Amino acid sequence: MMHCAEYVKPDGRRLWLYGRRPPGPIGPVPSPFASPVSVDTHLRRHPLLREWVIYASHRQDRTFLPPAENDPLAPTTDPANPTELPSGDYEVAVFENRFPSLVPQPGAVPPVQGADTAPAVGACEVVVFAQEAAQSLGELPTDRISLVLQVWAERTRALARAGMAYVLPFENRGTEMGVTLLHPHGQIYAYGFLPQLQARTLAALREHHERTGADLVADLARAERDRQIRVVAARGGVVAFAPPFGRFPYETWIAPTRSVPDLAGLTAEERTDMAFALSQVLRRLDGLWGRPMPYLMTVNQAPTDGAPHPEWTVRIEIWPIRRAPEKLKFLAGTELGAGVFANDVTPEQAAADLRGVSL
Amino acid sequence: MMHCAEYVKPDGRRLWLYGRRPPGPIGPVPSPFASPVSVDTHLRRHPLLREWVIYASHRQDRTFLPPAENDPLAPTTDPANPTELPSGDYEVAVFENRFPSLVPQPGAVPPVQGADTAPAVGACEVVVFAQEAAQSLGELPTDRISLVLQVWAERTRALARAGMAYVLPFENRGTEMGVTLLHPHGQIYAYGFLPQLQARTLAALREHHERTGADLVADLARAERDRQIRVVAARGGVVAFAPPFGRFPYETWIAPTRSVPDLAGLTAEERTDMAFALSQVLRRLDGLWGRPMPYLMTVNQAPTDGAPHPEWTVRIEIWPIRRAPEKLKFLAGTELGAGVFANDVTPEQAAADLRGVSL
Repeated sequence: MMHCAEYVKPDGRRLWLYGRRPPGPIGPVPSPFASPVSVDTHLRRHPLLREWVIYASHRQDRTFLPPAENDPLAPTTDPANPTELPSGDYEVAVFENRFPSLVPQPGAVPPVQGADTAPAVGACEVVVFAQEAAQSLGELPTDRISLVLQVWAERTRALARAGMAYVLPFENRGTEMGVTLLHPHGQIYAYGFLPQLQARTLAALREHHERTGADLVADLARAERDRQIRVVAARGGVVAFAPPFGRFPYETWIAPTRSVPDLAGLTAEERTDMAFALSQVLRRLDGLWGRPMPYLMTVNQAPTDGAPHPEWTVRIEIWPIRRAPEKLKFLAGTELGAGVFANDVTPEQAAADLRGVSL
Repeated sequence: MMHCAEYVKPDGRRLWLYGRRPPGPIGPVPSPFASPVSVDTHLRRHPLLREWVIYASHRQDRTFLPPAENDPLAPTTDPANPTELPSGDYEVAVFENRFPSLVPQPGAVPPVQGADTAPAVGACEVVVFAQEAAQSLGELPTDRISLVLQVWAERTRALARAGMAYVLPFENRGTEMGVTLLHPHGQIYAYGFLPQLQARTLAALREHHERTGADLVADLARAERDRQIRVVAARGGVVAFAPPFGRFPYETWIAPTRSVPDLAGLTAEERTDMAFALSQVLRRLDGLWGRPMPYLMTVNQAPTDGAPHPEWTVRIEIWPIRRAPEKLKFLAGTELGAGVFANDVTPEQAAADLRGVSL
């Protein structure tokens, strides 16, 4: 059971507080910013790559690595120094980003000579996993991680209802990954269009489904569970594995073994299994070299176009960007310039290493 | 006029020395490594993204940021401490990478359950722009940069003759971009297959050419030259401009204003103009905040499949990864997870800022 309450911040942004208990009283709903949100964002089309590029010049001024005592994602304790979140009895919080790249109702697109343009329709939300700044997602209890999965599912449903074509929950973890706020949090980007990567994925999964009648990801999860070569963790109907074609060192996927297009489609038991698997993977990544692993985690659900998606099963992908204790994995010439990733660690080795971590 | 001499290193790798004068005597051809090159590399197919991933586990041990006094890209001065290059009278050097991701004759592919595999056919070469470690590419005299363009053209031709499907010269510049050797240098990756990004680009350029009869990039270069809004530098038949749909802050392209599919097709005058424009752009990027700009530079020529490419004009793309004096541009959730880049700096502003730099 999940309870949710919606609020509006003084600067007009929306805030949602979630918990497994009915909501109790909370302190005044704060914002570190007094003025209304002002955005200057639009899309331009890249004609060689046929993908949209977001221009959001107001984001240059976004909050950048504030000191720990000014944690904007902690509950407000001093009303004279408002953070993004109120005090009170809640577990997970979501609010609209003060510096969004995409917004539900963008203004007029400025005239641009030489590029096709479009309004930057979408939404950018911040997901705070816990009130405590010290707790990373992987260290949270399984039932709290399960709540985070429910929150992602609920926001996905709400943003789909608002007309978004795709909803992407993700976590950039670690300053090496570019985080600008140290309090553990994720983000949700919702797009008014189908993003390039998801369009390519959809085409591949559809082609596979039409050719074989099969759901590639659920089939892969079952095959990996049965092969036992690249499994990192498994419980019930969910398996975590190093995909046999992973692009990042120690890349790990988590997926159910039956066809389920999105988080909302998981049973309560599957959600608990997925939370367990996610915790296992994140803790094993941190344990690998005894230090927090910087990563990008994405939740890859089916497009929210209202159509059935028998070709698509939800998966969480975790892409670590450290390839050795003292070495980061940089995306450079071949990865960015050719779209050909070079991976120093085979998935078989990665899974064996992660299984070998003592928790 | 360019002179070239080919050598073989003690460990079997090939070395080419280039200069505008006929080659003089050189010292013994060195290698920091005594044993023959040993590689363990293969390709696996990513079925959701339909792109090849290179597995090269031997690369974990590659040379990593050696101290300046052990510069492996400087000419050898002490035969007891061999570098990659001999002493002698040459200007630009190219040699086969000791830690290649792709090789002309890869060994057998190991059996992999769960992924389609292929031999990792290709080539990885290192291009040393100058004997002096202190000189960046942009600071070299224009006639030396023109020689580098000729070297790239010559290696492209040679690798095409060797059966490569695509040849990509590039430079990762700066430790922020992941360089592991500080002596200014570029790399050439040649692929036995058409890389994902180039396949997408080819499809888009072909579609445009079939629909309009036009060459998108040469048309764009002419239009940008005439519009004067986003021009960074221009001379003769070459223009440097911030593309109206750039994905990186201060992204700059350099292209000829007539249809030329590759560097080898440029006239000597166009090559000089391109060298001038490249020097201008790189020096303006360094001047923007008074510090070396980390970037990825790629040279985007037509596929080397032997077919004519009237749809494709060569362009150099420079992607800076610094968005403000103290802030890097990180690729994270939306860029990597959705293929949707968010750019804080409009091309119009970027070009104006770069034009305003005093050289």
